[in-house]
Amino acid sequence: MTEHRPSLAVVGATGAIGGVMLRILSQHADVWGEVRLVASSRSAGRKLVVRGEESEVLALAEDVFDGIDVALFLVPDEVSAHWAPIAAAKGVVVIDDSAAFRLDDDVPLVVPEINSHAARLRPRGIIASPNCTTLSLIVAVGALHAEFGLRELIVSSYQAVSDAGRDGVAALREQLALVAGTELGTQPGDVRRALGDEASTADSPFAAPIALNVVPWAGTDAGDGWSSEEITLREECRKVLGMPDLKTTATCVYVPVVATHSMSVHARFENEVAVGKAHEILATAPGVVLFDNPAAGDFPTPSDVVGTDPTWVGRVRRSMDDPHALEMFLCGDNLRKGAALNVAQIAESVAAEFPR
Amino acid sequence: MTEHRPSLAVVGATGAIGGVMLRILSQHADVWGEVRLVASSRSAGRKLVVRGEESEVLALAEDVFDGIDVALFLVPDEVSAHWAPIAAAKGVVVIDDSAAFRLDDDVPLVVPEINSHAARLRPRGIIASPNCTTLSLIVAVGALHAEFGLRELIVSSYQAVSDAGRDGVAALREQLALVAGTELGTQPGDVRRALGDEASTADSPFAAPIALNVVPWAGTDAGDGWSSEEITLREECRKVLGMPDLKTTATCVYVPVVATHSMSVHARFENEVAVGKAHEILATAPGVVLFDNPAAGDFPTPSDVVGTDPTWVGRVRRSMDDPHALEMFLCGDNLRKGAALNVAQIAESVAAEFPR
Repeated sequence: MTEHRPSLAVVGATGAIGGVMLRILSQHADVWGEVRLVASSRSAGRKLVVRGEESEVLALAEDVFDGIDVALFLVPDEVSAHWAPIAAAKGVVVIDDSAAFRLDDDVPLVVPEINSHAARLRPRGIIASPNCTTLSLIVAVGALHAEFGLRELIVSSYQAVSDAGRDGVAALREQLALVAGTELGTQPGDVRRALGDEASTADSPFAAPIALNVVPWAGTDAGDGWSSEEITLREECRKVLGMPDLKTTATCVYVPVVATHSMSVHARFENEVAVGKAHEILATAPGVVLFDNPAAGDFPTPSDVVGTDPTWVGRVRRSMDDPHALEMFLCGDNLRKGAALNVAQIAESVAAEFPR
Repeated sequence: MTEHRPSLAVVGATGAIGGVMLRILSQHADVWGEVRLVASSRSAGRKLVVRGEESEVLALAEDVFDGIDVALFLVPDEVSAHWAPIAAAKGVVVIDDSAAFRLDDDVPLVVPEINSHAARLRPRGIIASPNCTTLSLIVAVGALHAEFGLRELIVSSYQAVSDAGRDGVAALREQLALVAGTELGTQPGDVRRALGDEASTADSPFAAPIALNVVPWAGTDAGDGWSSEEITLREECRKVLGMPDLKTTATCVYVPVVATHSMSVHARFENEVAVGKAHEILATAPGVVLFDNPAAGDFPTPSDVVGTDPTWVGRVRRSMDDPHALEMFLCGDNLRKGAALNVAQIAESVAAEFPR
């Protein structure tokens, strides 16, 4: 009997997350038959290497989904919104990394470490993968929730510029080149003046200079003073944990870091907490690395975590005012688990459904 | 009748905060008679300009306090611990910027906008000025407390490297020069390797790279996983507000910004809060600037706030889960209000006590 392995399409193969996905597909146990690479017509014809073999990129069109079992969508929201239903209508299981479907009731939002069961119920044939901030946070907090019973999250983020795509990285690199070797950063507006148009034109996705600065605004205006990134984190945490009333407050801030998001987390639980028990849970939780001995210099920072898969957690303390609350600081690579890896993990769990 | 103006000694006149103090003394209404500049013997003999006149720096010794009414100590903790009592014993009113006396019961800890009355009761002749993080936070939060009744603070900081003195600034500038123009920041440990000894030797006061990174550890080990900076913020807020049981939790994180600390603040109050009323209070609170229209790009960032005196507050939202809680983001220059300015303000209030 010949083995049937499911076929895979990677839509958005030429983007930043697509590049990470091709490396993941080359590194993980190979569960796929044909792997088809798809991108916009602008990138069609390029040749990329996946699983050690060169493959030509096809232009996104309805027929690229012929004979495909599973499709990964690593593209902007509007591209997913249009094309994912077309692929799903052809019987393809779509795993979508965009925000287009994440909060739709009939689309599961899946983090395999937390709610892998949810991937099986997909009435529209679409499974969504959460935003990068949600992903870094939820693997750690979800593990603690299982033991202590989560009641409230108050999160402040330190978000990397690659969250805003290649433009975000380019803006930081260009601005750093202009401020390095100067004495800037000590006089009112000196950074903004030195950067000139760099900091304010459409070239930069940030609403203020990002070199020698932090920018407390991510996404778009969501009303009542909130940014869309803050509302997203709240709603996605609630959906993944299956707790529609979970109290969740976020303040999202960009920092001049290329990749890997950090978060300062205040988590309040139903049960009393103890740092020793929290350490035990985090040390064995899937997708989590405990790195917590600050006096010895052991705490997570983006420069050490970037390029790795797990969420790294450190600075775990019990609140001095509330025996039910923990403080912690965590880092997760927004391009790995925060994007490509979670999509790959969902896809691998779907692949296991196909008959051999 | 000739006017007697009190005489002033500035101890630590050649340091970073000393330099800011000399500019403030030149800019503010002049309430002083003689102004004597004092520093370590290493810096003695240098000439500095204050109030438009050149003045020679004297070496710190007991007799530099002869005939002095008020002395500003802008020096490391151990220098203050030794010399402030010597000056006070000679009848000098000491205003100390170090941490040496801040939490002593018989030394008032003063922020003129909040508790100016406390400066009058100084049994040891010493008045302490809070840490820079406390100062930026307390002028905003203290104003809201007067209206709503503060019950709890949960704060995450985005602290500038000048918090760690000239070494902190030098470390950031050296590291930025090494990473600018590179593709660093995307591979595990690449920044740390590129910086080599820069990131780990005694030259850098930070426990990890500070370029293209954030470092969630400030100060020393205060036990149970807390850093000394986090405990300081808690205890100083309690003391300045006169609320020894105030719930206060901080996570202190360095970011690659030269000067101006930022903070993400969750503040819970006794009374219900409203953003409109909070805006009204912050818009008129002394030492505070309200800058809050994020959809139009109006929110505080370090690059716009640096070099200015007030705490700038934006991103004010009412918690979606708790009508008693406000979220906000604030920035304050750690070298101005966060150090020299507050000391100068205390000194000016003391100067008013002297008979004319």
